[in-house]
Amino acid sequence: MEDWKLTYRLLTHCKHFFHCRLSPNFHNSKPFCLSGSRSHCSQPSELVKPYIGNYQQEFQTFKHLPVSLGANPWNRCRSQYRCFASQATIIQRRPDFSTISSEDLNYFKNILGERGVVQDEETLDAVNMDWMRKYKGTSKLMLQPRTAEEVSQILKYCNSRCLAVVPQGGNTGLVGGSVPAFDEVIVSISHMNKIISFDKVSGILVCEAGCILENLIAFLDNQGFVMPLDLGAKGSCQIGGNVSTNAGGLRLLRYGSLHGSVLGLEVVLANGTVLDMLGTLRKDNTGYDLKHLFIGSEGSLGIVTKVSILTPPKLSSVNVCFLACKDYANCLKLLLEAKRKLGEILSAFEFLDHGAMDLVLKHLEGVRNPFPSSMHNFYVLIETTGSSESYDREKLDAFLLHSMENDLISDGVVAQDITQASSCWHIREGIPEALMKAGGVYKYDLSIPVEKMYDLVEEMGVRLGASAKVVAYGHLGDGNLHLNISTPQYDDNILSQIEPFVYEWTSKHKGSISAEHGLGLMKADKIHYTKSPETVQLMANIKMLLDPNGILNPYKVLPPSLFTKS
Amino acid sequence: MEDWKLTYRLLTHCKHFFHCRLSPNFHNSKPFCLSGSRSHCSQPSELVKPYIGNYQQEFQTFKHLPVSLGANPWNRCRSQYRCFASQATIIQRRPDFSTISSEDLNYFKNILGERGVVQDEETLDAVNMDWMRKYKGTSKLMLQPRTAEEVSQILKYCNSRCLAVVPQGGNTGLVGGSVPAFDEVIVSISHMNKIISFDKVSGILVCEAGCILENLIAFLDNQGFVMPLDLGAKGSCQIGGNVSTNAGGLRLLRYGSLHGSVLGLEVVLANGTVLDMLGTLRKDNTGYDLKHLFIGSEGSLGIVTKVSILTPPKLSSVNVCFLACKDYANCLKLLLEAKRKLGEILSAFEFLDHGAMDLVLKHLEGVRNPFPSSMHNFYVLIETTGSSESYDREKLDAFLLHSMENDLISDGVVAQDITQASSCWHIREGIPEALMKAGGVYKYDLSIPVEKMYDLVEEMGVRLGASAKVVAYGHLGDGNLHLNISTPQYDDNILSQIEPFVYEWTSKHKGSISAEHGLGLMKADKIHYTKSPETVQLMANIKMLLDPNGILNPYKVLPPSLFTKS
Repeated sequence: MEDWKLTYRLLTHCKHFFHCRLSPNFHNSKPFCLSGSRSHCSQPSELVKPYIGNYQQEFQTFKHLPVSLGANPWNRCRSQYRCFASQATIIQRRPDFSTISSEDLNYFKNILGERGVVQDEETLDAVNMDWMRKYKGTSKLMLQPRTAEEVSQILKYCNSRCLAVVPQGGNTGLVGGSVPAFDEVIVSISHMNKIISFDKVSGILVCEAGCILENLIAFLDNQGFVMPLDLGAKGSCQIGGNVSTNAGGLRLLRYGSLHGSVLGLEVVLANGTVLDMLGTLRKDNTGYDLKHLFIGSEGSLGIVTKVSILTPPKLSSVNVCFLACKDYANCLKLLLEAKRKLGEILSAFEFLDHGAMDLVLKHLEGVRNPFPSSMHNFYVLIETTGSSESYDREKLDAFLLHSMENDLISDGVVAQDITQASSCWHIREGIPEALMKAGGVYKYDLSIPVEKMYDLVEEMGVRLGASAKVVAYGHLGDGNLHLNISTPQYDDNILSQIEPFVYEWTSKHKGSISAEHGLGLMKADKIHYTKSPETVQLMANIKMLLDPNGILNPYKVLPPSLFTKS
Repeated sequence: MEDWKLTYRLLTHCKHFFHCRLSPNFHNSKPFCLSGSRSHCSQPSELVKPYIGNYQQEFQTFKHLPVSLGANPWNRCRSQYRCFASQATIIQRRPDFSTISSEDLNYFKNILGERGVVQDEETLDAVNMDWMRKYKGTSKLMLQPRTAEEVSQILKYCNSRCLAVVPQGGNTGLVGGSVPAFDEVIVSISHMNKIISFDKVSGILVCEAGCILENLIAFLDNQGFVMPLDLGAKGSCQIGGNVSTNAGGLRLLRYGSLHGSVLGLEVVLANGTVLDMLGTLRKDNTGYDLKHLFIGSEGSLGIVTKVSILTPPKLSSVNVCFLACKDYANCLKLLLEAKRKLGEILSAFEFLDHGAMDLVLKHLEGVRNPFPSSMHNFYVLIETTGSSESYDREKLDAFLLHSMENDLISDGVVAQDITQASSCWHIREGIPEALMKAGGVYKYDLSIPVEKMYDLVEEMGVRLGASAKVVAYGHLGDGNLHLNISTPQYDDNILSQIEPFVYEWTSKHKGSISAEHGLGLMKADKIHYTKSPETVQLMANIKMLLDPNGILNPYKVLPPSLFTKS
């Protein structure tokens, strides 16, 4: 065993790369699921299939969908919605919202010109639907403002007319937050995509909200800096949407959340007020720091139009290793050691269990077991990013040697080049695809204190017995578990054993039912599993203060029942 | 010059240490000004001297105070306040606030017992006054709850009776935020000082708000972790107060602000509602992240009763160097290089100018010039903190060599041990004391984009000419400037040349008039220099939503005129 450190096994080259994190250039530019939650609804039922046709056509991987899908409920009732691993969310269009009139169109054309007012069916079809094709609205109008002032005029008008609005960035969200629920006016910020300034001393970038994340990453790369945020969807997602959803992503362990790195925002409120909070200061203690209200509020409190963000300098050295542990307790000890020994260079600490590895090896082409002679109970992927290749590698080596001597790891490989590093990442990143290929899957994106995290997986395993395969992986360094229950086909009995148990368990252990994806339309009515009633009520009060007519992204984030007028 | 790297000059041992940052054990446990803004008001006038007697008695260092101070205005009018380098802030006690009755006292004794209701004069004298003795209230009652439930009962009652309340932690604030303006009930959280839990894997600490920062630092030190926050006042300040004021301190460059590291809060609202937002999760995207409203709201929106905070592992290697630069442009280039070359191990980047060094050498005992043969225009103190002594030192050496080769630094010393490191820090930390000894001083704590920061200093120098000495130092790595104007004595003419110019200049360059100290009573009416009218109005609306009777820390943070009933 001790010789292992000196004779690192070399990983063989995968045939195709799913995702490589070593450089922005290696990323796939297409939206891609980082967390395993972007796969498609696996349990359609008669009531909740507004978009059956394309669903079947597009997603052949779901071999076990029930055959009898029933009539398209869109044609029957405008108040029904898709489910997501749970019972259907039924909502009604708010009757007090206006519908678009020709006067409205004239007004918008007057502000934006003809090209800023989009009514053609093909374009509207695309922007009415989320990229997973899980949610589909029926909006007849998309507006494309180019300045905050135009956004202000739009919202002021919509507010006075009680026209509902859905703000839309790259439309890569996972919870139905960026598409209309019904016929809301889509306000796209895509045309507000200029970089306003970059300060090479402070690393502070100021840009418009419609800038595509990948473009910002490329811009900063040229300047010798990196975005503190990186996502699989970066080729499409926009920084305004990232901020509005408090996107997590791959660099959170190292650089923290957007609440830490966003320095300022410009936001347009529902009544058209332009809030200039576009500070470029690391420190500013003058009054309440209101920008945080808009980070993660999913466009329901205001539309973000400009962003100021602190970016760290680019570091030159990246190392990746893939390790095996005999049990979860050792994974935790290893995490502790990594935080201590690798400290400032640790940039990722991901884990997967035996079941996840098994699925990847079975269902993904070109993936080879890094430890061909045996299977282990747990696997950990560690990445370091630092400023000195030789020192960082020596630090990593010392950490690995120490971990082996203390029996924290049973086996391991260290990538010798980008190709091998990609292969390591491919195992971790390939799990969602493998799960989809394996059959039906119930997916949960949870934050749970790391010490208790795997208890849920084990309890779920006992609960379901042989009827399903419980598979776990995720961002262990961030306490983010992706719990997946894989079954040959959808089964109401299994669902009833999973839910509400999984939410109740998460709630009981002070976890979060949405670690990084937000609530959107999908989980708006499930917020109480994570947040206290008093906190939810205060959220509703703040929503009513900032948007008394409720025109901004209605039906989402908070349970609509909170706003029902008696 | 090139030989310098190989033969680092050794700093001689200072006779006394003001402050040493290498280990918590080296810190002075008494409150101490890190930023230079804790010195005392230097321009008393007849109208604004509520506490003249002790002021003269206590602060003999101010030799140039005007002799004619006039009658104590406390005896004449209950609506006047001390000034701070500006015109007086005149406020009136809100007539609709009740005064304490015997029924009130009985009620509080019933909830808290006799020992939780403090009325003795000596204790009240102490808690009515801030630690700089700049602000003094006339409260007749301090309450000492021991649980959030007790805080809730107190606030619910005070709200119903319209009794004003000032929350108080360690009372180490610098802007009059933690003492009564008039006769507000003081609610002290000092007795809520238990550590609730610590997770050694995630590094998440949960504790009551009254925990003294130094105790938390010591507790974590034993666990192998550090607080992401460190302050000179740590021996007295409490974590609830730190959170409520969004304290900055020494570790901000490395670990970011409390908005990034605080994971959860328990807060009691003005109406007694206990908001349980005490999450222990790194990632939680379920609704609006309301805890941020209370971070930095200076107790005006609610009383923080519990805190959950992410703490990083303790790292073993610390290096300190003290460098000379020929101009400010080189300081900025050096900052850029340090961020890039030292990257993940950079933990402090402080600067001082020629004038500041001159004052320290002239007025502080035991301080020696690290470069005895010459004076330089600028000095920079760099600290690194990492996990490997040899690697970190080699990185620092390489950075220094590169900087010298590129003429970014003119001279430099690297501390060889803790003693020498202390000496370096003593120069930087001794500036406020040196300024006080030099005579009258006008102090400004500003955030300004680093590229423009020194322009203000130069413009101020030209503006004032020979009549005053303009001295600058601060946390360059954080963009935090401490601008000080040193004069032989207080002079209205000089003040009128400084203000409102300094605020207008800061505002024009999108800076902040309070980088790290908050607004409190001192700058509540100056918020408009940093925040837009729309943003201030929204703050006021949120204050009215959460505290409609305005009982929580009245007169502070926001201009009282915003709440005047017409």
